[in-house]
Amino acid sequence: MSGPTESNGGARPASSPEEGAEWLRGKGKDADVVLSSRVRLARNLAGRPFMPRASRDEREEILDSCRSVILQSGLAQRMMWMALHLASKEERTLLVERHLISQQHARGRLSDGTGGLKEPRAVAASVPDERLSIMVNEEDHLRIQVIRAGLAFEEAYQAIDAVDDALEQRLDFAFSPRFGYLTACPTNVGTGARLSAMLHLPALKMTGELEKVKRAAQDMSLAVRGFYGEGSEAAGDFYQLSNQTTLGKSEHVLMHELEREILPQVIRYERSARAKLLDKRKNALEDQVHRAIGLLTHARLMSTEEAMHLLSQVRLGIVCEILKGTDLAAVSRLMLLIQPGHLQQVIGQSLTQEQRRTARATLVRSRLKTSSRKGAG
Amino acid sequence: MSGPTESNGGARPASSPEEGAEWLRGKGKDADVVLSSRVRLARNLAGRPFMPRASRDEREEILDSCRSVILQSGLAQRMMWMALHLASKEERTLLVERHLISQQHARGRLSDGTGGLKEPRAVAASVPDERLSIMVNEEDHLRIQVIRAGLAFEEAYQAIDAVDDALEQRLDFAFSPRFGYLTACPTNVGTGARLSAMLHLPALKMTGELEKVKRAAQDMSLAVRGFYGEGSEAAGDFYQLSNQTTLGKSEHVLMHELEREILPQVIRYERSARAKLLDKRKNALEDQVHRAIGLLTHARLMSTEEAMHLLSQVRLGIVCEILKGTDLAAVSRLMLLIQPGHLQQVIGQSLTQEQRRTARATLVRSRLKTSSRKGAG
Repeated sequence: MSGPTESNGGARPASSPEEGAEWLRGKGKDADVVLSSRVRLARNLAGRPFMPRASRDEREEILDSCRSVILQSGLAQRMMWMALHLASKEERTLLVERHLISQQHARGRLSDGTGGLKEPRAVAASVPDERLSIMVNEEDHLRIQVIRAGLAFEEAYQAIDAVDDALEQRLDFAFSPRFGYLTACPTNVGTGARLSAMLHLPALKMTGELEKVKRAAQDMSLAVRGFYGEGSEAAGDFYQLSNQTTLGKSEHVLMHELEREILPQVIRYERSARAKLLDKRKNALEDQVHRAIGLLTHARLMSTEEAMHLLSQVRLGIVCEILKGTDLAAVSRLMLLIQPGHLQQVIGQSLTQEQRRTARATLVRSRLKTSSRKGAG
Repeated sequence: MSGPTESNGGARPASSPEEGAEWLRGKGKDADVVLSSRVRLARNLAGRPFMPRASRDEREEILDSCRSVILQSGLAQRMMWMALHLASKEERTLLVERHLISQQHARGRLSDGTGGLKEPRAVAASVPDERLSIMVNEEDHLRIQVIRAGLAFEEAYQAIDAVDDALEQRLDFAFSPRFGYLTACPTNVGTGARLSAMLHLPALKMTGELEKVKRAAQDMSLAVRGFYGEGSEAAGDFYQLSNQTTLGKSEHVLMHELEREILPQVIRYERSARAKLLDKRKNALEDQVHRAIGLLTHARLMSTEEAMHLLSQVRLGIVCEILKGTDLAAVSRLMLLIQPGHLQQVIGQSLTQEQRRTARATLVRSRLKTSSRKGAG
């Protein structure tokens, strides 16, 4: 165990833009549809005010208490800690793009609209894999997140359970025998657990069946959100499916329902839509996928949205075996690297939006050309 | 002189799809803007009824008289003759796509709506260059057309004048000392001459200045039409600019105005719009041109309209020196080969619209890849 790492005070990023975010690598069970399985627990320290009512001094104290425990509990081989009120805008953007912190946490805003950039808050993450991350002083004192590639809620749950136990040995969590874990927002009371799957559903989108899946999910109290969670748009046909309520059902029931019933059903729907497209509209599908490669390898200007959309098409082409020489890992990595923060990190300087469109197109071109050459060789 | 060639009665096309249509080769003066200069004369035989009033027997007689004169006057090294009332639909389509006959002539329709496929009518053309063609029994007994690559009205006019003289030695044309040559439609009376330039004006289109040029042209009694003349849409930003009236101005005045004043002005406008784009919107222009190449070299399905549009972008890229490895002649030839008739000719069989979209994409892909490899080598 190489022990804790801290990275604040300088311009050094959480991880190199090229490594980390293991969940984006396209591995794992059912990875053709499920990018990642994520479990999040909301925990609060007993005897301390919930965030909306905590003073600045109290927030500092909470931060200090959590910091030492998180960094010294052996939660991972290496843990990175970053105090966000001391971090630069660029660092915070990178963390959001890697799904390590929420957009709210980056801004220091609580859901009641209070707070700001200077509010004492932090994020800890296991590096370089980033499979564990802990937001401190977001909406709750602690938001623990474990993420795995593919459909792997049981594994993620076991891991987060161990983290939860380790922290609870040294921290006293607010808990009511009647309601369960107490949280700032009532929707998280109870288990305090949110389970989210990041899904790639391009075929359901194309066949128009996605709306049916969304309605069915809502009927089961599941929310369907965009690539960056609450309030974000679906980028490139990636959707987050997660539970809405945490009260009244144990994590286990929730998790088993998702892992063994609901997600296998969604996976079957998406695969059947892909099979239908390959059967009835093969030419159109091939055309679409090859056009995406054509644009990605030739365009000189590209927005994040377009790049995500085209990479999504290419991902579909790879998993449907239309594209043979293109590397799924390279495509998945590009989904991260084309985001504004990562792009500037790769280039090594801050860029205007117009410059980013040029740099993004250049990056995508060079990476995909290399990837196809490797794939073809 | 190898003498006349006739090609009716069989499936043999006017020329091979790969040769001919010299004007599309991208050579000639000011060829970056002017694809071709075309002069057309309308002539009618004296003592015979104009087409709308000619009986079937009279049309047969006119056709016979013209046929022997056209094929025996030494107008070109080799003249091809095709009787259109005996030709297949495929043969007629090829001729329209090569701009050797009008759409009306292909259908055997006069502008008054009478006529039909069985009306006796023909086309003669010099082969393989196709620089001279003569429609017999279109709206007038004879429509003589000479076409040259680039801005070359003086040369085209000299050539057509020689053809006109040669024919007039053996045919008696309807002529009034007061009005000039008499034609079926009053707009052609006088010189009977129409001069048309085929222009590539993508930059004026992009900068929105094309409308100004169109209005200015109309003020000078010039018509701006699409790629296939009257009633056709502008395909790929190609426009035909031609005179509307033939009465009251000698061919010479008309021709000099076009060749020395009006077209040089349009050419300057287009070039200045290109320079402006290269100066102010270089990134956007490069992006657009490279995207066009990306789609042309990757798509699996493509309509004629899209192909024309993308080839037009590529042509712009070549003349603006954004694309260095792509051959202008290959691009120009593709503009012909992607048309439905030529496409089926190249493939060697009749195809449904859906099959054509696939075949067109395949053809374009293979030709452009070969062309870039050659260009890069």
